[in-house]
Amino acid sequence: MLKGKQTWWFNNKPVIIGAATVVGPDEGDGPLADDFDLVHPQLDMQQKSWEKAERLLMEQAAEFAIQNAGIQKSQLEFYFGGDLLNQIISSSFAARSLGVPYLGMFGACSTSMETLAAASMLVDSGSANYVMAGVCSHNCTAEKQFRYPTEYGSQKPPTAQYTVTGAGAAIVAASGNGPVVECATIGKVIDLGIKDPFNMGAAMAPAAVDTITAHFNDTGRSPKDYDLIVTGDLASVGHPIAKELLQRDGVKMEDTIFKDCGLMVYDINKQKVQAGGSGCACSAVVTYGHLLKKLRSGELNRILVAATGALLSPLSFQQGESIPCIAHAVAISGKG
Amino acid sequence: MLKGKQTWWFNNKPVIIGAATVVGPDEGDGPLADDFDLVHPQLDMQQKSWEKAERLLMEQAAEFAIQNAGIQKSQLEFYFGGDLLNQIISSSFAARSLGVPYLGMFGACSTSMETLAAASMLVDSGSANYVMAGVCSHNCTAEKQFRYPTEYGSQKPPTAQYTVTGAGAAIVAASGNGPVVECATIGKVIDLGIKDPFNMGAAMAPAAVDTITAHFNDTGRSPKDYDLIVTGDLASVGHPIAKELLQRDGVKMEDTIFKDCGLMVYDINKQKVQAGGSGCACSAVVTYGHLLKKLRSGELNRILVAATGALLSPLSFQQGESIPCIAHAVAISGKG
Repeated sequence: MLKGKQTWWFNNKPVIIGAATVVGPDEGDGPLADDFDLVHPQLDMQQKSWEKAERLLMEQAAEFAIQNAGIQKSQLEFYFGGDLLNQIISSSFAARSLGVPYLGMFGACSTSMETLAAASMLVDSGSANYVMAGVCSHNCTAEKQFRYPTEYGSQKPPTAQYTVTGAGAAIVAASGNGPVVECATIGKVIDLGIKDPFNMGAAMAPAAVDTITAHFNDTGRSPKDYDLIVTGDLASVGHPIAKELLQRDGVKMEDTIFKDCGLMVYDINKQKVQAGGSGCACSAVVTYGHLLKKLRSGELNRILVAATGALLSPLSFQQGESIPCIAHAVAISGKG
Repeated sequence: MLKGKQTWWFNNKPVIIGAATVVGPDEGDGPLADDFDLVHPQLDMQQKSWEKAERLLMEQAAEFAIQNAGIQKSQLEFYFGGDLLNQIISSSFAARSLGVPYLGMFGACSTSMETLAAASMLVDSGSANYVMAGVCSHNCTAEKQFRYPTEYGSQKPPTAQYTVTGAGAAIVAASGNGPVVECATIGKVIDLGIKDPFNMGAAMAPAAVDTITAHFNDTGRSPKDYDLIVTGDLASVGHPIAKELLQRDGVKMEDTIFKDCGLMVYDINKQKVQAGGSGCACSAVVTYGHLLKKLRSGELNRILVAATGALLSPLSFQQGESIPCIAHAVAISGKG
């Protein structure tokens, strides 16, 4: 395995042999609706709590991913999972249903690519043939925990983001057909002192820039090596900041190749989602639902997904702390 | 790398070249006091909040581990960290101070061995030369978050456990002197329906048994292959249950080799700690402070640390859910 300062190279070419995404009604009203395996028409998914609904999303995404990969549940060897809830209960309860050896991870919304990087590392090492990476989030569990229960109807500033209701799972295998995970750049915590939890995009933009820059330095690649570079959930406030910061560092990103999952999952001009989508399901459902299909079809050849995460808690916010942020980037190629 | 169903074998022999532990006053009053690098005489560590105190523990353990390993901070390539707090803020804020690429993990009290397993996997793969695994917990942050603020003085049943105030960190390297991480057995989520958060030991015992049994099955080893097998924090209620469950499965564990970190870190007859210690720092400070020294001196040749975790949240408890539990076991040998 080659060495990059922050980058893991996967020389044995772990393959995403199957993936699945399950979403809620708002995502089903968005531009990527046709790319998801299942769209729930109601936010509660006929469950008795928002938390049970979120768990169901993860369980369904896992089941569909296993089916789409063409393997049996019993062949799945490890599950790297995470979510936004305290003590990542959605993932842990889903792991109980799955019955697979489980490693919980937390990187806020960056957990999507953190788990994919870890799963790919494990497969690449030769320790496992089939490993699942999966994350989930639910608008109402996130609002209730991080801000106010949605039932209060509290208003938000336009810089706020809208947590994606959904789950995405990918099965990484030692061999098979599908897009190949080439390498992963693990982020450092970056904190420029922003304290406003209603402006996560601005807080996370410098972390995205730091990781994307590290990725280019470690790999010798540049934007022209990618058909698409997406950030996780910087949305309409953070994404232009990231673009400008990269430009200042001498990295020019064309609008045609530099996009953001939070701006892709919703039509922010028509849907009431403030600045755009967020949540660990945001980059997961866009990557595993939308982008992998384009890699399989050949419409895209190689992409970089830089999932961003704001590592705050309600308590750290209440105690006056700023928001530490991180981004993990994974490069995926359509051809092995 | 050999294959075991749940077990990762580290054939390139990653070495723990240095480790450090920092604890609070209760641990300093316990039987292992002399094994810790630093004992704080006060629970607040002169910080303005319990959370800041917990973060300081982690930062200090990381600094001392780097020193003890004889490396420069700039040589450290990745940090796998976790803790018990919502959104693992102690680890993420410590990662901000460290400035090292960071992967957050959560497995409740099992995070100690989860992070050590992941760090060892990464080093074994050849992707990094120096990786830190570290966890922390603080009695007052845990009580405040999971139960009641300690200032309330609420009483507890004798089955309850006492969260260890401390942090432990280990530097895993591709080569060097020190105990070798041989393999790690990753646990499944086990939930037998226990709902009492004041009886975590009983809830976690079956998870410990499941992982220890899987470890023996995967590796072909038995208790006689180890000088010591420790569970993470089953304490005085859970540990005898684990012993009995293993006995029923035909695995006889002698008292001389089967111990529990929660019973080692305190003198439960003298100290007011109910059934014994818990928290992710429990197994971390016992392993990294006490047991590694015995492996280095040759007093122990090979140990298995099966760190246990209760994956509940206050919310899942309030919603009437039972407690999903997990255990991750790491085998460490004094000789390479």
